[in-house]
Amino acid sequence: MTQQRIGIWIIGAWGGVATTAAVGLSALTKGLTGTSGLVSENPYFKKLNLRDWDQFVIGGHEIRDTSFVEAAKYFSENSGVFHPALLQAVEEDLKAFDENVKPGTLIHVGDTIRSLAGDAVRKFDTETLQETLARLTADIKEFQEKHDLGHVVVVNLASTEPPVDEAAKSLSLAELKDALENGVTSPVPASSLYAIAAMEAGCSHLNFTPSAATDLPAMIELAEEKQVLHGGRDGKTGETLMKSVLAPMFAHRNLNVMSWVGHNIFGNLDGKVLDDPVNKSNKVHSKDHLLTEILGYKPQTLVSIEYIESMGDWKTAWDHIHFQGFLDTKMALQFTWQGTDSILAAPLMLDMVRFTEREWRRGGRSGVMSYLSSFFKSPMQATTPEFERQYQQLEAWADAVSEE
Amino acid sequence: MTQQRIGIWIIGAWGGVATTAAVGLSALTKGLTGTSGLVSENPYFKKLNLRDWDQFVIGGHEIRDTSFVEAAKYFSENSGVFHPALLQAVEEDLKAFDENVKPGTLIHVGDTIRSLAGDAVRKFDTETLQETLARLTADIKEFQEKHDLGHVVVVNLASTEPPVDEAAKSLSLAELKDALENGVTSPVPASSLYAIAAMEAGCSHLNFTPSAATDLPAMIELAEEKQVLHGGRDGKTGETLMKSVLAPMFAHRNLNVMSWVGHNIFGNLDGKVLDDPVNKSNKVHSKDHLLTEILGYKPQTLVSIEYIESMGDWKTAWDHIHFQGFLDTKMALQFTWQGTDSILAAPLMLDMVRFTEREWRRGGRSGVMSYLSSFFKSPMQATTPEFERQYQQLEAWADAVSEE
Amino acid sequence: MTQQRIGIWIIGAWGGVATTAAVGLSALTKGLTGTSGLVSENPYFKKLNLRDWDQFVIGGHEIRDTSFVEAAKYFSENSGVFHPALLQAVEEDLKAFDENVKPGTLIHVGDTIRSLAGDAVRKFDTETLQETLARLTADIKEFQEKHDLGHVVVVNLASTEPPVDEAAKSLSLAELKDALENGVTSPVPASSLYAIAAMEAGCSHLNFTPSAATDLPAMIELAEEKQVLHGGRDGKTGETLMKSVLAPMFAHRNLNVMSWVGHNIFGNLDGKVLDDPVNKSNKVHSKDHLLTEILGYKPQTLVSIEYIESMGDWKTAWDHIHFQGFLDTKMALQFTWQGTDSILAAPLMLDMVRFTEREWRRGGRSGVMSYLSSFFKSPMQATTPEFERQYQQLEAWADAVSEE
Amino acid sequence: MTQQRIGIWIIGAWGGVATTAAVGLSALTKGLTGTSGLVSENPYFKKLNLRDWDQFVIGGHEIRDTSFVEAAKYFSENSGVFHPALLQAVEEDLKAFDENVKPGTLIHVGDTIRSLAGDAVRKFDTETLQETLARLTADIKEFQEKHDLGHVVVVNLASTEPPVDEAAKSLSLAELKDALENGVTSPVPASSLYAIAAMEAGCSHLNFTPSAATDLPAMIELAEEKQVLHGGRDGKTGETLMKSVLAPMFAHRNLNVMSWVGHNIFGNLDGKVLDDPVNKSNKVHSKDHLLTEILGYKPQTLVSIEYIESMGDWKTAWDHIHFQGFLDTKMALQFTWQGTDSILAAPLMLDMVRFTEREWRRGGRSGVMSYLSSFFKSPMQATTPEFERQYQQLEAWADAVSEE
Ligand SMILES: NC(=O)c1ccc[n+]([C@@H]2O[C@H](COP(=O)([O-])OP(=O)(O)OC[C@H]3O[C@@H](n4cnc5c(N)ncnc54)[C@H](O)[C@@H]3O)[C@@H](O)[C@H]2O)c1
Ligand SMILES: NC(=O)c1ccc[n+]([C@@H]2O[C@H](COP(=O)([O-])OP(=O)(O)OC[C@H]3O[C@@H](n4cnc5c(N)ncnc54)[C@H](O)[C@@H]3O)[C@@H](O)[C@H]2O)c1
Ligand SMILES: NC(=O)c1ccc[n+]([C@@H]2O[C@H](COP(=O)([O-])OP(=O)(O)OC[C@H]3O[C@@H](n4cnc5c(N)ncnc54)[C@H](O)[C@@H]3O)[C@@H](O)[C@H]2O)c1
Ligand SMILES: NC(=O)c1ccc[n+]([C@@H]2O[C@H](COP(=O)([O-])OP(=O)(O)OC[C@H]3O[C@@H](n4cnc5c(N)ncnc54)[C@H](O)[C@@H]3O)[C@@H](O)[C@H]2O)c1
Ligand code: NA
Ligand code: NA
Repeated sequence: MTQQRIGIWIIGAWGGVATTAAVGLSALTKGLTGTSGLVSENPYFKKLNLRDWDQFVIGGHEIRDTSFVEAAKYFSENSGVFHPALLQAVEEDLKAFDENVKPGTLIHVGDTIRSLAGDAVRKFDTETLQETLARLTADIKEFQEKHDLGHVVVVNLASTEPPVDEAAKSLSLAELKDALENGVTSPVPASSLYAIAAMEAGCSHLNFTPSAATDLPAMIELAEEKQVLHGGRDGKTGETLMKSVLAPMFAHRNLNVMSWVGHNIFGNLDGKVLDDPVNKSNKVHSKDHLLTEILGYKPQTLVSIEYIESMGDWKTAWDHIHFQGFLDTKMALQFTWQGTDSILAAPLMLDMVRFTEREWRRGGRSGVMSYLSSFFKSPMQATTPEFERQYQQLEAWADAVSEE
Repeated sequence: MTQQRIGIWIIGAWGGVATTAAVGLSALTKGLTGTSGLVSENPYFKKLNLRDWDQFVIGGHEIRDTSFVEAAKYFSENSGVFHPALLQAVEEDLKAFDENVKPGTLIHVGDTIRSLAGDAVRKFDTETLQETLARLTADIKEFQEKHDLGHVVVVNLASTEPPVDEAAKSLSLAELKDALENGVTSPVPASSLYAIAAMEAGCSHLNFTPSAATDLPAMIELAEEKQVLHGGRDGKTGETLMKSVLAPMFAHRNLNVMSWVGHNIFGNLDGKVLDDPVNKSNKVHSKDHLLTEILGYKPQTLVSIEYIESMGDWKTAWDHIHFQGFLDTKMALQFTWQGTDSILAAPLMLDMVRFTEREWRRGGRSGVMSYLSSFFKSPMQATTPEFERQYQQLEAWADAVSEE
Repeated sequence: MTQQRIGIWIIGAWGGVATTAAVGLSALTKGLTGTSGLVSENPYFKKLNLRDWDQFVIGGHEIRDTSFVEAAKYFSENSGVFHPALLQAVEEDLKAFDENVKPGTLIHVGDTIRSLAGDAVRKFDTETLQETLARLTADIKEFQEKHDLGHVVVVNLASTEPPVDEAAKSLSLAELKDALENGVTSPVPASSLYAIAAMEAGCSHLNFTPSAATDLPAMIELAEEKQVLHGGRDGKTGETLMKSVLAPMFAHRNLNVMSWVGHNIFGNLDGKVLDDPVNKSNKVHSKDHLLTEILGYKPQTLVSIEYIESMGDWKTAWDHIHFQGFLDTKMALQFTWQGTDSILAAPLMLDMVRFTEREWRRGGRSGVMSYLSSFFKSPMQATTPEFERQYQQLEAWADAVSEE
Repeated sequence: MTQQRIGIWIIGAWGGVATTAAVGLSALTKGLTGTSGLVSENPYFKKLNLRDWDQFVIGGHEIRDTSFVEAAKYFSENSGVFHPALLQAVEEDLKAFDENVKPGTLIHVGDTIRSLAGDAVRKFDTETLQETLARLTADIKEFQEKHDLGHVVVVNLASTEPPVDEAAKSLSLAELKDALENGVTSPVPASSLYAIAAMEAGCSHLNFTPSAATDLPAMIELAEEKQVLHGGRDGKTGETLMKSVLAPMFAHRNLNVMSWVGHNIFGNLDGKVLDDPVNKSNKVHSKDHLLTEILGYKPQTLVSIEYIESMGDWKTAWDHIHFQGFLDTKMALQFTWQGTDSILAAPLMLDMVRFTEREWRRGGRSGVMSYLSSFFKSPMQATTPEFERQYQQLEAWADAVSEE
């Protein structure tokens, strides 16, 4: 008897990371690429008996009028990734995934994101809040039924929202529910509404963005109530990954970090949205807090993220770390990271979906998956900010699961 | 009743690292500097009740005719470290340490090191092997008695020797002893003779250099026989530290490292000795092996160490790491490390002496201290090549010790 | 018969660049340092028969309460420049120069600069505009007389002012004079008032800062009227020097620069003032315009200047240049410039004073010295923005002068 | 009446630079690419009335058994240049060029180059020296006739040969001729034989490699005798271009360069050949000499070129320049150059062919074209080593030509 397949429902389905994941999933299924960049393919996790790549189906919500095929072509031309031959080979799969993408919602996304919206999603501008939530939930359920999926993991890969209102942070679950059932405007932004729809539909939920979808206390409560799995916030792919790896070295060698300056430049759609100072503030905070946590004191820090069109998806980060060693001697470490942002992010999303499915398969598990901390810049309920120790937690989880 | 003080007997006493340690020890004792760069000052190790900085006395063996005072001045002028005011403040202590330095030996050190030798050590050119060993041992014992030291830790900080003969690697302890007692020429180089003298004198022994002093099977056997503590090889201070921190990131993110190129330039005396290809080969090997150990496969690697006079003690390393991510996409990380080599190394030596003293204080302990792995490029009996896991072993040891 | 000496009257006399110039001048006079960094010491200019270093006397205007001696000590401690032995050797000269420093003016300098002011200058807060101008002029004349100086070159080395009002840019000389003779508030800021005082006193005037002192049409007219020499704006020392050297390479190789990103970090007093966005805007403009001039089109550019305290006077600039070559292939050049800002700037100031004195010695010369273009980021009346061609103009001028 | 077209006869026709030139020439002809990277397309040279891109035909000598089509595909896959769509568009042209490629010669090329040779060229292993020269000359003449070409420029783009024997450097033209007409072995290597064949056939000759083809006194004499144009040696594309641009800045600012370290890594066929220390020595010399020429003194220099397979055609150079400024203060500039070597080189070759054709069109001109100095690392009869001054010579030549 064959197993039911697993759904990946992506918020921001036609974005850079999502499109890369779709291209990659098809390429993996067809054996057209190696497994570099996929954490779940590390030998250590063999014992987990994770689902094969051909066991996943992609769908999702979007606000722009485009398609996986178009987005992948643009990416290929603009950033020099995805060989044309590869694109041709996966085109059929992308077209099939395109069938599963539905218009999302623009509630509280801010002007910059709203300016991206196409006709399809604008048709729903006059919906009530209650209609929106019902529609989003129905979309996910329909996806699950249509493809006869054993489980669906909803992943937020949408543009970074502006920071959430302070008020939302103190809402209890009861208050949130009341507002959503009876209110006219939502106290929470789109990312949270998607998460609520996901949980209502009995899906696991992962937040790869710095948006509010996950951290609000009411959202954590809801995950427990609905008995679903929950993980986030903000994928850790480049400069921040480096920080979480290098800062422990300075801490453990007792090298006093006086200042840590990080300048990021890139030119993709995510960069354009982050060029809005409001949206950017959400991201910068997520990139900045962990130094203090790891070092135990606050060095002077600076993080800039700038949209430089020519870079395309190539995120280049220059970091200058000024530190004091023995006899108070000043020294410096500089690094330049040159990576394709979506190529770094997409496999991590696929990894987390696989690990989440494995946890769900154990049965009876719900709430925050803190052993996924190594994947996030601002992991919920993390017990350590150091990358290696977070990774050891993933290994420990794998040990526990495999011993069952 | 006051405790007896602890001796630090340094092979290569007037070298850069040793001199920096002497200046630093005095400055710490006088409260003239902070504790940056000292691992043993991390809050985690408070519970170990380590010996205070004023509890240590420095002496050692050398082959050049100079002094701590002179070497420190040269360093200060040439590399811009040690403020003249600091030098003045520590001068009395340095002079006192200078009293404890004795001529060493030039046996099998190779031509480049021999060319550095001064008159004092050349006087012993006609000694027999047996006389040399007896003299070296007597020097250490005299130091211990003269200063009424509770324990002496011997640390090798001498210039990097040429690689040891293959034959020496298969010598049993019995064969080695026989050769030393009855032979005319030594089967092992100076670094090993110093280690033997140390162990004969009942001292602990640490090897901060890539020289043969520690790894030979016969040496490890001898440490057990003499019931002394033993640690090495080659302090991990700059580029290699970075490798042992960054390579695990690539491994755990399953990013396929295709090539790792590292170019080191510096202009101190160590650099001059390493400019001899024979001596250099010993160092390059020590810097190169761990990538394969961490990654589980061998990327193309290149390590160069070049003597560039203008750099003085400022070791600048440029590393270019070329790796493949998802969909076989090529990306790159570059870093430039700009550190003063001796300033980085000296505190680690002091840390290890403190930790070694603490282990010795437990009583009844001997052999290789594998929990010191995080300090070495090529740690003996290491169970993991990853820096963070090595550091966790140090923490675990501290837990065990403090719970006694 | 001995020649009369030459005065250097510095606006911002106790600032970083000025103090470095004072230390350097004394060290040169005493033969305590080499001539690195001094353009006027290039063999090419031997034929100019420039004045010897012992022929110059320093004085100036300031607003802070400090001294050359104190400022030099702070610099030495904080940025690791000026060896203590050097400081001691030049102390007497610095003290003598200190005698020649007088309180300046705070007119239209903005809040950030005003916050630096000490008691000495605040005493003049209630002066009328006319009294201020008269006082500033008198200070310079007194300096000239007291030291029996053949000529005085006034150099602006004060903190960067906020941009000047648009209105000031269209003032005729007549209108400016009228406002200064009869008005209550000045239409121009302190830097211009100093320049006017200098010209009134018959002195040459150089503007090393991005402030308005020089470029206003009325100022250029005034220089002609008073028959004095005039040069500026904004010394070209680091990142911008690199731009004026590298951009011609891209232009002449027809490599299409798509984007040029430059991030500057430093931690001196100049950096603190530039941390005020108003003052910074003046500087950023000066650093940014020349790419378009050299390339003939406008690439996307980004210039940041950030105050990072730990850096002291060490300005570190990271530039990322993204360009397209043949077949529209994208490539990149990155550079990191690590220089001490004041050490780079001070000799250029001394060079320009020497060259200006030489021009003045020719007799009957006045107005903008456009052959000094290679020294400035925004040179007045420049005929080319390329560094090498500007330098050739300096050589050509030297040829002309020496042939007289 | 239509003009006759111009031939480009390439030694090393199927190499990286040559293939890129062939792809580029076809793409330019078809209007499929912009003109970035082509110096001759700078507006300044419009007045020269250079030949259009569709006026050139490519042929040449090779020793490997491959083709433009195959080489271009390999390049596209391996180094991520040449979009597959572009390759398809130019395939017909490449096939036509392939018809014009003939087997060359292996005389004195050394073992590393010989190991690349295919069957086609090995058939001529038993030829006499005289037969070889006659064959090479005949190939070029046949090319000219077959395509009815107005002029042929022969360009050496073959692998770097080992350094030439000292003896060859003192040969007079008469002695060289005698040896070639009557000798059994050639006193000069393949590159020179090709140049002789070119001149015998009345062609202009350019040497883009560090090989001996051009500099030998006898070769320069021959060019004059045969009344042909002659230019070389070693295209200036990356790190050395940077040196010739940056070193003048240090010189003119009187910043004392203490050391200049340059490490180059790349992974193309040229890199493989240069991995042979004998061939490499030729290149390193060419990259190293000009610092001393520009600075007027010899700083400590280090140039490494290492074959790192993963890099493909992407030459990455890290340079560390350590210099002393005012008051003997040490500072540093580092740069990282990331360019595709062939993409940088190919347009320069095309430019020089165009400029050479224009000089030939003037009539009655022969000998070394020293106004091409800006294109070469080791230009013959150069009067200045500075890039900008060399470029000005090209402009001055264009002025002179256009005024005729
Ligand atoms: N390395 C990385 O790429 C990385 C790392 C960490 C976090 N992230 C985050 O992941 C997210 C995706 O990054 P990306 O590069 O793919 O960005 P992107 O801009 O290419 O894609 C975002 C997509 O979300 C869509 N979208 C925006 N608002 C939406 C809404 N309310 N509902 C549905 N769709 C919506 C957009 O139309 C777009 O297609 C961003 O928030 C980014 O900050 C990315
Ligand atoms: N960051 C670091 O500095 C670092 C890191 C790892 C390892 N090391 C190693 O530590 C050692 C010391 O480094 P350093 O920079 O102080 O070098 P150094 O050259 O300044 O000092 C070495 C000293 O050893 C002395 N010496 C040489 N042979 C001797 C002998 N046979 N007996 C006694 N003395 C002898 C020399 O005279 C010299 O004073 C070197 O082997 C170096 O490779 C240093
Ligand atoms: N490499 C360089 O250092 C460099 C390059 C180009 C331009 N500049 C410019 O040169 C100037 C000096 O740089 P610095 O590093 O010495 O700065 P600094 O801040 O150390 O010195 C400026 C001095 O000017 C004084 N000052 C401010 N306003 C004044 C006023 N109205 N009258 C008299 N004195 C006044 C301040 O008190 C201070 O002592 C700055 O404008 C800077 O932007 C410097
Ligand atoms: N940026 C640059 O690429 C650059 C810059 C300066 C100089 N160069 C020089 O230009 C030359 C070409 O560079 P490339 O990257 O194309 O190298 P390549 O190795 O790709 O091409 C060289 C070609 O020459 C052929 N060849 C070798 N010996 C020959 C012979 N005796 N007769 C005929 N053909 C022969 C080889 O088979 C190969 O096809 C090299 O000498 C290189 O050092 C290149
Ligand atoms: Na992204
Ligand atoms: Na400054």
